[in-house]
Amino acid sequence: MASSLSFSQAATAAGTTVSANARLQNAAPAAQSHAPMAFSFGKFAGRGLRSHGKVAFSPKRRLSLDSSRKNVIRATAVETLETTSTALVEKSVNTIRFLAVDAVEKANSGHPGLPMGCAPMGHILYDEVMNYNPKNPYFFNRDRFVLSAGHGCMLQYALLHLAGFDSVKEEDLKGFRQWGSKTPGHPENFETPGVEVTTGPLGQGICNAVGLALSEKHLASRYNKPDCTIVDHYTYCIVGDGCQMEGISNEACSLAGHWGLGKLIAFYDDNHISIDGDTEIAFTEDVITRFQGLGWHTIWVKNGNTGYDDIRAAIEEAKSVEDKPTLIKVTTTIGFGSPNKANSYSVHGSALGAKEVEATRQNLAWPYEPFHVPEDVKSHWSRHIEKGAAVEAKWTAKLTEYENKYPVEAAEFKTLISGKFPEGWEKALPTYTPESPAEATRNLSQQCLNALARVLPGFLGGSADLAGSNMTLLKMFGDFQKDTPTERNLRFGVREHGMGAICNGIALHGGGLIPYCATFFVFTDYMRGAMRLSALSEAGVIYVMTHDSIGLGEDGPTHQPIEHLLSFRAMPNMLMLRPADGKETAGAYKVAVLNRKRPSIHALSRQKLPHLAGTSMEGVEKGGYIISDNSSGNKPDVILIGTGSELEIAEKAGIALRNEGKAVRVVSFVCWELFEEQTSEYKESVLPAAVSARVSVEAGSTLGWERYIGSKGKAVGIDSFGASAPAGILYKEFGLTIDNVVASAKQVMA
Amino acid sequence: MASSLSFSQAATAAGTTVSANARLQNAAPAAQSHAPMAFSFGKFAGRGLRSHGKVAFSPKRRLSLDSSRKNVIRATAVETLETTSTALVEKSVNTIRFLAVDAVEKANSGHPGLPMGCAPMGHILYDEVMNYNPKNPYFFNRDRFVLSAGHGCMLQYALLHLAGFDSVKEEDLKGFRQWGSKTPGHPENFETPGVEVTTGPLGQGICNAVGLALSEKHLASRYNKPDCTIVDHYTYCIVGDGCQMEGISNEACSLAGHWGLGKLIAFYDDNHISIDGDTEIAFTEDVITRFQGLGWHTIWVKNGNTGYDDIRAAIEEAKSVEDKPTLIKVTTTIGFGSPNKANSYSVHGSALGAKEVEATRQNLAWPYEPFHVPEDVKSHWSRHIEKGAAVEAKWTAKLTEYENKYPVEAAEFKTLISGKFPEGWEKALPTYTPESPAEATRNLSQQCLNALARVLPGFLGGSADLAGSNMTLLKMFGDFQKDTPTERNLRFGVREHGMGAICNGIALHGGGLIPYCATFFVFTDYMRGAMRLSALSEAGVIYVMTHDSIGLGEDGPTHQPIEHLLSFRAMPNMLMLRPADGKETAGAYKVAVLNRKRPSIHALSRQKLPHLAGTSMEGVEKGGYIISDNSSGNKPDVILIGTGSELEIAEKAGIALRNEGKAVRVVSFVCWELFEEQTSEYKESVLPAAVSARVSVEAGSTLGWERYIGSKGKAVGIDSFGASAPAGILYKEFGLTIDNVVASAKQVMA
Repeated sequence: MASSLSFSQAATAAGTTVSANARLQNAAPAAQSHAPMAFSFGKFAGRGLRSHGKVAFSPKRRLSLDSSRKNVIRATAVETLETTSTALVEKSVNTIRFLAVDAVEKANSGHPGLPMGCAPMGHILYDEVMNYNPKNPYFFNRDRFVLSAGHGCMLQYALLHLAGFDSVKEEDLKGFRQWGSKTPGHPENFETPGVEVTTGPLGQGICNAVGLALSEKHLASRYNKPDCTIVDHYTYCIVGDGCQMEGISNEACSLAGHWGLGKLIAFYDDNHISIDGDTEIAFTEDVITRFQGLGWHTIWVKNGNTGYDDIRAAIEEAKSVEDKPTLIKVTTTIGFGSPNKANSYSVHGSALGAKEVEATRQNLAWPYEPFHVPEDVKSHWSRHIEKGAAVEAKWTAKLTEYENKYPVEAAEFKTLISGKFPEGWEKALPTYTPESPAEATRNLSQQCLNALARVLPGFLGGSADLAGSNMTLLKMFGDFQKDTPTERNLRFGVREHGMGAICNGIALHGGGLIPYCATFFVFTDYMRGAMRLSALSEAGVIYVMTHDSIGLGEDGPTHQPIEHLLSFRAMPNMLMLRPADGKETAGAYKVAVLNRKRPSIHALSRQKLPHLAGTSMEGVEKGGYIISDNSSGNKPDVILIGTGSELEIAEKAGIALRNEGKAVRVVSFVCWELFEEQTSEYKESVLPAAVSARVSVEAGSTLGWERYIGSKGKAVGIDSFGASAPAGILYKEFGLTIDNVVASAKQVMA
Repeated sequence: MASSLSFSQAATAAGTTVSANARLQNAAPAAQSHAPMAFSFGKFAGRGLRSHGKVAFSPKRRLSLDSSRKNVIRATAVETLETTSTALVEKSVNTIRFLAVDAVEKANSGHPGLPMGCAPMGHILYDEVMNYNPKNPYFFNRDRFVLSAGHGCMLQYALLHLAGFDSVKEEDLKGFRQWGSKTPGHPENFETPGVEVTTGPLGQGICNAVGLALSEKHLASRYNKPDCTIVDHYTYCIVGDGCQMEGISNEACSLAGHWGLGKLIAFYDDNHISIDGDTEIAFTEDVITRFQGLGWHTIWVKNGNTGYDDIRAAIEEAKSVEDKPTLIKVTTTIGFGSPNKANSYSVHGSALGAKEVEATRQNLAWPYEPFHVPEDVKSHWSRHIEKGAAVEAKWTAKLTEYENKYPVEAAEFKTLISGKFPEGWEKALPTYTPESPAEATRNLSQQCLNALARVLPGFLGGSADLAGSNMTLLKMFGDFQKDTPTERNLRFGVREHGMGAICNGIALHGGGLIPYCATFFVFTDYMRGAMRLSALSEAGVIYVMTHDSIGLGEDGPTHQPIEHLLSFRAMPNMLMLRPADGKETAGAYKVAVLNRKRPSIHALSRQKLPHLAGTSMEGVEKGGYIISDNSSGNKPDVILIGTGSELEIAEKAGIALRNEGKAVRVVSFVCWELFEEQTSEYKESVLPAAVSARVSVEAGSTLGWERYIGSKGKAVGIDSFGASAPAGILYKEFGLTIDNVVASAKQVMA
């Protein structure tokens, strides 16, 4: 323990630790190897790169890999090493490898290859570089780590376990991928404290990391003072070949370069193996050149398997480049240490099998039982509890100093990171009356966004190059840019998927930021992967989706959503809102802000809509509610149900039918999910079971409406693609008319 | 006419035309200007780049743009010019500009900026470079053109009009963006012959172009002979800044570089304006460097506004590079010629307005009425009808020669490009009995894919790096690669969105290729934009989507689809199939192959499933059908409806209920869309209106099932996210059990 303690004392600040370590090792090479070393890659020697396709591999590439393989060093089988020598580092690295191997083996499911290859960079990050407090995973100023290649999650679980996070105990490792465990098959922030975001779908994590780094840059620029720094952390990320191939990562990395996110450091695990075999079969681009084009600083660590000092030096260099994000390409061997499976796709996504696990134990001279952490490794890592507490205490003291010097800013900052809202914030939302001038809900949305930005210090966002169409600009702020990071209008460019995933990172940063983002509703098709992860990972992103139907007119069917409303109504933990006018738009934003663990989509019109008499913010909170009714005893002749721009049609059809003597109820069905959460009494009061004569009207798929109109109801909607023509003509041609609703009502009443 | 004819005779081969023109103009500069020229950009002089955000622009960039502006040359107002001089080219270019300006003005909607800036490259492509036959837009060996920046479609409509395509007459230009016109707001192949693919959603077109170029390379390598070339065309594409920002384009361009698609030539319209303003606000990456990283040849034409010879030379250079695709970055001025709106976002997506149209006419010295094509321009372009017929005739003669020399190959090739299938192809599909060993439908799918590849010469495809999980490898073929283009296994890498859009290009190439592509079903979220365009543009892509439910087990909720089945059932013109066993999988593929204008999705299990007694291929073609029934008189006590892996549960629940004396019908509901197309008599025979006791069971959203189970039915399904655990445990925990279906049936019968 003594050596651990002294190490801990020397290493309060992570930045210092690295350089101290690096210097120590450079100065005293003799101290690096307390243990016998052996070069043992004999079993690899005869094996070419694997693929089950017919591909000629570049001999040049193979050579460079072969040379790195020669650096494999056996860890020792001594139970305790006394100093933090390279031998101890090796031993810790092998501990990480075997925790991954053993957990995957026990589950008979999972991905051992990445943890075995990335264990060195993982060790250096969590043991030497990163600031965090294992006993408070939500410590605000922690360095963030994102495993974009989420399938390698056993790497992260092993690291969290060694570092002392309570979320990953030994029994959790043993429960890997089992029902109810804290160690699911991919990293999930909502299951495992210490995991920042939810990854697995490739490419998402690096975009989340861009969002985390953006949050840091924004908050740092707003709250830090020349004499007092309270926001100051790095974002680290490991991306694999798969992440690099996904377009989403190029989108976000282009933005990271544009924004100059200097505290974003991404490790590219260049192991040249993906599920289908060698990346030569589909991925021969020059990633370093591409990232240079994207405005990143780039470094190549050629031996990521054992080149610890190279990794350390790369991180130092990355930190020294403050105006650009850094990509550290780290060439590794997937499944490092497995004599028969390393460097092949077979180690990517399956358990090694008992025989190969044994061979790997032999090869890396690892005599321990499954899940065993050798005492010296355990002791070495144990300092992080103390160190983490010290790091947090130091920051807390800094915050107190800040509070004394800058009480106003401190109050705002503390509210922000507490996740609370200023008292009475919702009163800032605009109010409307039926006399207010008709307006497109996209414009009403902009009034709400601007109102919220005035009262919510964490409110920020932007559009994928459609700010002027989505109406998302915050008028009192400028653009968040490299040199103007205090501003709050985010300019995402035409990068919908990256935008969504960046916003997930912002929402999950822990800094209390509330991100919104925008495009045309139809282009949710480009970003659905990120939106689903908002829902799954409880990231309360606000999706501002305008041009929500054929009502957008001339742009035609490529731009006209049809099935989109339904498709999101079916997505778990997503609120799909389609407000009809000003009051409902304000209500939708109130719901959105309050739901910090549930993302919301706001489907908004391009075309002008009147403010209806019966709508209300309160109604929106119930999801579905009566806006007009001339019936009594909860027994209308017919119920007309509309949403968004078609609520006006339902209301006018209702008036026409009442003029013919009918008892008509008109219901706004602005959010199905919220309606489902109401009591059965409330639901019965809106949609009484006894009344089967029901008509819905919505400019979208009719599928799904049967849930509310029943077998005898009629849905007026569109089940084909739209067309290019002025909106009014389209509404007529597609039958979205008052006449058609009236006729349908008469049919169902007959 | 005389000069046109001689020009036409000199220009039978497009490649020759370019260099002849270029040489002519270099040799005789005095002949280039028959008309007075005037430099007239005074009104631009005082204007900086526009944006409504707060951004500092790079002075360097502004300078280089300013210098290109000085090259603006007024076209003359002489009605007829006698030679194909630069002045006539200018006049043709201005004709294109004003057709776009006038059409957008008349529609009061559209995007004039791109056509005004890209008219020079458009003119050179359609007038000097490309091979096509305006009277047969489907002539097989035509050069393909894709306007990836689809909003600029008036460029393409103007070019098709000038070139003599019957699809775009003057009245079609005047009907731009109107109901029923052939000139919708974005280019739609199914509306406008001469338009190859449907673009508008940014980034898709360049990926389609990659698919078109891949098709050419594949067919050329399979059918061309050293002494007889029958497949030989280029694919040209114009991409804008928006396309470049989209991740999908990076995915496909990475593959294009990997595959070495030397006959793909993309023009990057570098006008540094997107909807939100100057691209400086969100897009400052170095595109040329990125494309070099992607393995492309790159060229920069710095004056795309008037540098005709530079554009010509760039195309020549691009053609000379045969092992790499080429990106020609062409710096243009958006809205070129508009004195007050050029070079700003205001000219991107709105009509200029009467006053600015007039100012533009003045500025470019264009005295003609709206939609007027000057006689000399008309006469000049008129040669393309004769030239196109000659080009096609020459190719037809070549094909006859080929047929004489290579009758077997010719027969196959002709069947292929006719879109017909070899007689009796469907008999190749595998057959199964209840005694066949239980198998995952993903494995049964592979048997079908391999069977089809044996009998369908156009069948090819692959996976987004999951070939071994999706089971999509064609065992008798190797990988399509740069040097092995005859092979039929496509390796897309982890690029789902690009994969889908590339397959759209393959399906719409006209070469009779039938592409399939694959990933996990949940990752349709990454590629939905392309899938929707398959449906809209009638591209019969076959989507092989495995791991179709929580049945995939341990990978957990990031990988488990829930809402996806429903979301695709609501997508127009998309067939969502979920086969339950071998017979249904074979049936699904039969449906898929036959539906060449309707894409299909095959949701397939990871887990093994038994072959059921009552399933059939014929049943699949009806969408929903009875697989077992002990009732009589079309009056079962209860109807149990299942799909895919849950059909077995429904069947077993049926057996259990029959053992208790109930009359139970079990229905397979493999494809809702096909069921909807059946007669009402057939539907009634499967789901009689009188029987309201119905239970559905499906491992996905319950929403939507009300359409078939009615208000009194019960849907057994999952409306939350899944979890990470073995599949059997998940099925139990989420209630997808025989017991639960039996209990539900008893409830609805009560």
